[in-house]
Amino acid sequence: MLKKKGKYITAVVGATGAVGNEMVKTLEERAFPIEKLRLFASERSEGKRIEFREMMIPVETLNEKCFEGVDIALFSAGAERSKTWAPVAARSGCVVVDNSSQWRMDPEVPLVVPEVNAHDLKWHKGIIANPNCSTIQMVVVLKPLHDAARLKRVVVTTFQSVSGTGQKAIDELMRQTADILNFKEVTCKVYPYQIAFNVLPHIDTFLENGYTKEEMKMVNETKKIIGDEAIRVTATTVRVPVFRCHSESLNIETEKKLTQDEVRAILSAAPGVIVYDAPGKNIYPIPIDVAGRDETYVGRIREDETIENGINMWIVADNLRKGAALNAVQIAEKLIEMA
Amino acid sequence: MLKKKGKYITAVVGATGAVGNEMVKTLEERAFPIEKLRLFASERSEGKRIEFREMMIPVETLNEKCFEGVDIALFSAGAERSKTWAPVAARSGCVVVDNSSQWRMDPEVPLVVPEVNAHDLKWHKGIIANPNCSTIQMVVVLKPLHDAARLKRVVVTTFQSVSGTGQKAIDELMRQTADILNFKEVTCKVYPYQIAFNVLPHIDTFLENGYTKEEMKMVNETKKIIGDEAIRVTATTVRVPVFRCHSESLNIETEKKLTQDEVRAILSAAPGVIVYDAPGKNIYPIPIDVAGRDETYVGRIREDETIENGINMWIVADNLRKGAALNAVQIAEKLIEMA
Repeated sequence: MLKKKGKYITAVVGATGAVGNEMVKTLEERAFPIEKLRLFASERSEGKRIEFREMMIPVETLNEKCFEGVDIALFSAGAERSKTWAPVAARSGCVVVDNSSQWRMDPEVPLVVPEVNAHDLKWHKGIIANPNCSTIQMVVVLKPLHDAARLKRVVVTTFQSVSGTGQKAIDELMRQTADILNFKEVTCKVYPYQIAFNVLPHIDTFLENGYTKEEMKMVNETKKIIGDEAIRVTATTVRVPVFRCHSESLNIETEKKLTQDEVRAILSAAPGVIVYDAPGKNIYPIPIDVAGRDETYVGRIREDETIENGINMWIVADNLRKGAALNAVQIAEKLIEMA
Repeated sequence: MLKKKGKYITAVVGATGAVGNEMVKTLEERAFPIEKLRLFASERSEGKRIEFREMMIPVETLNEKCFEGVDIALFSAGAERSKTWAPVAARSGCVVVDNSSQWRMDPEVPLVVPEVNAHDLKWHKGIIANPNCSTIQMVVVLKPLHDAARLKRVVVTTFQSVSGTGQKAIDELMRQTADILNFKEVTCKVYPYQIAFNVLPHIDTFLENGYTKEEMKMVNETKKIIGDEAIRVTATTVRVPVFRCHSESLNIETEKKLTQDEVRAILSAAPGVIVYDAPGKNIYPIPIDVAGRDETYVGRIREDETIENGINMWIVADNLRKGAALNAVQIAEKLIEMA
């Protein structure tokens, strides 16, 4: 558990990536109680400096002793690096909030979205996992509906932005778009096919069962976070040529009937959710509006008449913020609150 | 009914639009038996000429007598113009294949996708309706599965290209993209919000029930084309920054169990469908590959374990071809075959 004190020596591991960068920004914006901020990245980033509270902080490389004295470490450096270094950090007495997929389904590691299952922070053993971006925004919306009417089944199709893949994918979309507008040939380095002016029903690798890892993350992480193995989720995850924010088309079936007005009322009162839903006035969430926001936005709420208790809706959240950096910082804030 | 003869005086109404243009190209490519091609458009297009079989054909404006002697007229000029002029053409003894929404749900008018319900052409009274683009590609895939296992329910989310809106939307996506890359302010003329690097869960106008007209077209047209009111469809239709081809994420539930191998076998044998599905080799349909193709491509076929008899799949078709121009020309070809 985190020691009770006023300010914390805090580290960001993977500080030069798209999410790591957002973590530093989020710590600053939210006035996180930092005694000292330490930034880590791979050798390639040696010599770089990142601005935090009007100071330029040098980026360090990881070593066996680098976590000594660190209270909280936010990791966003990929599963491989996390596998090696999160236990090193934890052994140093530091609490790790890890954004990779490495520890998420480990029964010894809580998988937390503060609005949904902050109580699971109580049993952590040094590592806490931050869920997958597309799962986080979904469970923030699903949990209050589950509490009200018990979820039976969720059919979800996602529209995921390239920033979910990282800075190199942001660059690729930009470069491919410019090349097409300039009648140049398009090259693909990050994705197997052109992403500019295209959509790819392929996120992360394919598994034996025909689903992608990303799709199975939505299935399995949802159950673990909400804490109910009976919730059935089936997912199709799709990359779209959007820079920031993931959108999701959700079809849900509940045990108890909910009218669309009841769904609106429940979600309006839910933490971290904003109901943005007045189709007659063209009010519904879209990625360019939600970019930079902390909440998950919900619109297009309507009853699905093809089943007894069905609801369709459309949710959008900033995948770098609530889908990654913000959720990790919120976990750290909860830990402090509970210390 | 169409008179039996070798070649037909054929008209395209709305010849200067994105779909009309594609109709002229499709008639040429498929060596449609044309005696004479006549092209119609609004006054704005007066003086224009369009190439057909190496001839430049002048664009005419519509008048009460312009359909005299015309055997077949393909209309793609919007619902309003179709409401006025399709009956005029039909009264002249011409068979109209209309691409607008005007006549689709009229019980006196067959709504036809040749692979699915060519038999409905028998009872036409001068006007035949071409279904909505997003519906056509879906029913081509659903029909053989319905025949094999009886469809109970379909949950569909679409990723629709801007060409579905017309040439002005193609121009808007191009212009907005260039403006963003050049750090200029973005203006919106066709869509209510920026479509470049964004997605809009809004196609056609919103109805009382919270669904869009586009969504209800998918619900209602599917039942009429397949000829089974018991098929339940719920849809979320979304515009994406893609120039050409609509993609659809389909979740279906059947009465009888179908394994993913059975679905693959059924669809491989289905007319107008190509199974393109080997995820391990990154083989799945994407818009930039399917553009210009006649068939509907299906991939990501996998069993949905959240229900007894569920299948997820991903389908892509060229919305200007199979979704509009090609389907209309195929209807005309069927009429000739049946004459």
